[in-house]
Amino acid sequence: MSYITLNNNLPGIVGLMAYRPETAKPLNELAEILLRGESTLTSAEREMIASYVSYQNECHFCHSSHGAAAAHHLDGNLDLLDDIKAGFKKIDISPKLRALLNIAKKVQILGNKVTGADIKAARNEGATDREIHDTVLIAAAFCMYNRYVDGLGTWAPEEKEAYDETGRMLAHEGYTRNKFTG
Amino acid sequence: MSYITLNNNLPGIVGLMAYRPETAKPLNELAEILLRGESTLTSAEREMIASYVSYQNECHFCHSSHGAAAAHHLDGNLDLLDDIKAGFKKIDISPKLRALLNIAKKVQILGNKVTGADIKAARNEGATDREIHDTVLIAAAFCMYNRYVDGLGTWAPEEKEAYDETGRMLAHEGYTRNKFTG
Repeated sequence: MSYITLNNNLPGIVGLMAYRPETAKPLNELAEILLRGESTLTSAEREMIASYVSYQNECHFCHSSHGAAAAHHLDGNLDLLDDIKAGFKKIDISPKLRALLNIAKKVQILGNKVTGADIKAARNEGATDREIHDTVLIAAAFCMYNRYVDGLGTWAPEEKEAYDETGRMLAHEGYTRNKFTG
Repeated sequence: MSYITLNNNLPGIVGLMAYRPETAKPLNELAEILLRGESTLTSAEREMIASYVSYQNECHFCHSSHGAAAAHHLDGNLDLLDDIKAGFKKIDISPKLRALLNIAKKVQILGNKVTGADIKAARNEGATDREIHDTVLIAAAFCMYNRYVDGLGTWAPEEKEAYDETGRMLAHEGYTRNKFTG
């Protein structure tokens, strides 16, 4: 039950976007560019960054939705959500992605926590300026989405299986196809 | 000197937006709707929320730019920036805005820090659902902008007087007139 009257019973950001379509539009456009737009990072990698930051921000809805989207860019196994919570112990991710996740983790705490050494470590693993830029903006953007979702007290399904269809839609249909795929 | 090569020497988010115009577009559109779009909160009030959250996030560029924008919606006196830092001791703001600033401060910490009591206190001062929604989203959005600006190590002028013209432009020309008014 959200803190404001949404006139819908949609979960998480989906209900908020239906309530205020004017702000939903740029919010969805930003997600589409960052997570599915042209990039040398795969969409699975970018969704994992989004899900990881959301978990650090204690946002169950966003962690689950974007973890499920990452899974659907891969083999569809939702156990990935548990592995994201555990800090990527099972999935075989590249040293470059690990270095970018370290930057994302610093951004989640506060922008000025990112150091030149964090950037250098990512560069040493082959990260480009654009990849570093997009990682910082993805992490920053989820610090927004997460606060929007939880700050208004929206509800979210508990079980990861409940995010399977959302994850499939986000991965394969995207964020701007219709206003309810937030 | 930012962490990545921007190929411009523009400060703060302005340099980042010139570097990556694709993401600049929804970022500016969101700011335009939230800070200058139709609302029962004045633009001065909304810019004060933005500047206040940016100060809590230790983002000097955003605190100063949006504090200067708030000043330019009022009498143009940049001493407002110091008063925002001090927690609005001098400016005569409404009890409703004070209650909304309390919500913004909770959002800045983390979305789930906002309580039903915080919402009720704002309602008791006359805040509407739309005002509460927009306050939460403004606070959340600045948790993004601030981290974007500082996470990439951009530079920012120190003195508040250096933000006078930026504040005037943001207040009176807005965020979408051209891609450099971030």
